[in-house]
Amino acid sequence: MPKYRLLTPGPTEVPEAARLALAKQVRHHRTADFRALFAEVNAGLGDVFQTESDIITLTCSGSGAMEAAVVNTVPSGGKVIVIEGGVFARRWTHIATAFGMEIVRLEVPWGAAVNPVDVAKLLAQHPDAVAVFATLMESSTGVLHDVKALGDIVRKTPTLLVIDGISGVGCCECRTEEWGIDLLVVGSQKALMLPPGLAFVSVSDKGWAQIEKTKPQAFYFNLSIARQKLKEGPDTPWTPNHMLIAALAENLRPICAEGMPAIWARCRKLGEAARAGFTALGLKIFAQKPADGMTAVQFPPGIDGANLLKCLESRFGIKLASGQDRLKGQIFRLAHFGIVDELDILSCLAALELTLSEMGQPVALGSAVAAAEFVFASGPPS
Amino acid sequence: MPKYRLLTPGPTEVPEAARLALAKQVRHHRTADFRALFAEVNAGLGDVFQTESDIITLTCSGSGAMEAAVVNTVPSGGKVIVIEGGVFARRWTHIATAFGMEIVRLEVPWGAAVNPVDVAKLLAQHPDAVAVFATLMESSTGVLHDVKALGDIVRKTPTLLVIDGISGVGCCECRTEEWGIDLLVVGSQKALMLPPGLAFVSVSDKGWAQIEKTKPQAFYFNLSIARQKLKEGPDTPWTPNHMLIAALAENLRPICAEGMPAIWARCRKLGEAARAGFTALGLKIFAQKPADGMTAVQFPPGIDGANLLKCLESRFGIKLASGQDRLKGQIFRLAHFGIVDELDILSCLAALELTLSEMGQPVALGSAVAAAEFVFASGPPS
Repeated sequence: MPKYRLLTPGPTEVPEAARLALAKQVRHHRTADFRALFAEVNAGLGDVFQTESDIITLTCSGSGAMEAAVVNTVPSGGKVIVIEGGVFARRWTHIATAFGMEIVRLEVPWGAAVNPVDVAKLLAQHPDAVAVFATLMESSTGVLHDVKALGDIVRKTPTLLVIDGISGVGCCECRTEEWGIDLLVVGSQKALMLPPGLAFVSVSDKGWAQIEKTKPQAFYFNLSIARQKLKEGPDTPWTPNHMLIAALAENLRPICAEGMPAIWARCRKLGEAARAGFTALGLKIFAQKPADGMTAVQFPPGIDGANLLKCLESRFGIKLASGQDRLKGQIFRLAHFGIVDELDILSCLAALELTLSEMGQPVALGSAVAAAEFVFASGPPS
Repeated sequence: MPKYRLLTPGPTEVPEAARLALAKQVRHHRTADFRALFAEVNAGLGDVFQTESDIITLTCSGSGAMEAAVVNTVPSGGKVIVIEGGVFARRWTHIATAFGMEIVRLEVPWGAAVNPVDVAKLLAQHPDAVAVFATLMESSTGVLHDVKALGDIVRKTPTLLVIDGISGVGCCECRTEEWGIDLLVVGSQKALMLPPGLAFVSVSDKGWAQIEKTKPQAFYFNLSIARQKLKEGPDTPWTPNHMLIAALAENLRPICAEGMPAIWARCRKLGEAARAGFTALGLKIFAQKPADGMTAVQFPPGIDGANLLKCLESRFGIKLASGQDRLKGQIFRLAHFGIVDELDILSCLAALELTLSEMGQPVALGSAVAAAEFVFASGPPS
């Protein structure tokens, strides 16, 4: 059995302190101890989200929190704009469809980032749109969308800006309050370095004002009820996965100590190094505007991608993600967030050199590792 | 610090094997290994539920799975009958209200079990009711409802029988298929002995037929989508809390080896012993028809209940649950499911003897323990 090296853009490796917290004997959750812990977690999440707004913790995976963001803000029949540029962006459309909303889709070619000008035009055409739904880091393509620019446009209108930051927050720069993001959705199994099972939604004052006048198609995901319990306790209306919340407290301590700007810079540097390595191997980066938290890479022509990933896993224990949907067999995806570090990136590149070489590709052994090392040697992340 | 002894009817103590599974490093979940594990879990859940129908695993707490059972079967505006006899039964009403359903409430006094004849009458008056929503073990009152009798009534009609078995399944006899339960909801943090974070819904053929013709107000909780993925994989449509699923596999192995009839008998015996002990202390059992998985006990007159529970916790580490809602300060609640065993019951009674005595109550020390031991000594559970 090779060592297992999980390098997928979610789930990601969980630090030992969090794993040990998960192994603890369960205690009751309606206690002063839990409320103190939850208050600490909420403060830490404020750092990660870069906001002082309420952040609601939900026991579900990211898709559930996306649903919460939709159904609490948009009434049945309400109009929404969805910026669709990948598998996960399309989920906004699927949710809005399930709840009977009118959808204006802005299709962005997969691999490209949205042009904010197009959003401004669409908003001018649809001033009655309740919300624009977009994505920070689209983890099916590795693209970073310019959420700051979207915020500058949307904040001038009555429309809300709702961002899927499930995989992007905690690795890609994201200043919720400063950028004017009204609802931001984050998952536990990405840069927060936990198993799946929790998701989070921050809501701005503008967001709460809209939620208050919307009759939500929601019970479990009713954000107003959750906000009430947050203020009273802090507590949750339904039994939370409080063991994951305790594990999150363990992860938030080092995250908050390092600080978000330092973490963003570290992930950016890892991404630069990874791209330098892949490029040295003649591989093409899929995203036109690559995100700091992950890299999507096209398989070289003539290589069976599934076989390449299988070889990496069976010989080196390296688990990369394959492409999804129409990108199946076209790309692979590497995470550089959470506790992925410089040596993980170099190991991955070394494994790729050896495996591609074994598969008959012309590879200068050491070249990708060297290219990445040059990036790391160029100075500290900034 | 006293030893911590969690005896609340959820969450409950988690066995070591499951806790160690939770501490393992995370692996990716879209793999053959996960599908094999999930198939094993689904087979084990079939034993627990006593059904060969599909069982859907949801990443949420029990309330989320209750919502799934409502929104997938009942269209907006559809009529439902809710048997309301406690805090948790009332949750059916709250969910149905949130999704715009017409509700016929059958109010049952808290502490009493529903009279099945009343349900038959109501069904005759409302033959257009899509579903009857009821509870197996109402954990706010400790009452066991006669679900078998409800099944005999409802199965003769086109109406569905939907049961909240969140806390009751795995300790109280429940034969899903034989009794004609169409949807059965179960939570992870009760007799399945896990932390909160997963919930399960079984669906009969009659249930699926209704779901197929209902336009659900659901996305994350859409059971048809989940069923499709279950059949394809077994897999889940959204990222599951796969670490909890792995921990569940650990718990299901001893559960399935012991077998449900033996577990039901064991819990019943624990309940009898607990009630004998409480009665010997002059305490009154709250439920007219006590469930096998827990006991709700009235505080003796003149005793400050909150203080009693606090003393039990601070001196002995025993955590019991207090009453909820209108039962706050009236009762306490003890679980006898999961890995709660004979000595846990005796310890709890001994602690109660000492604490009540210290609080000035006339207590014959050892009397409650003796009464419970007589039950245990009367023969093996049957």
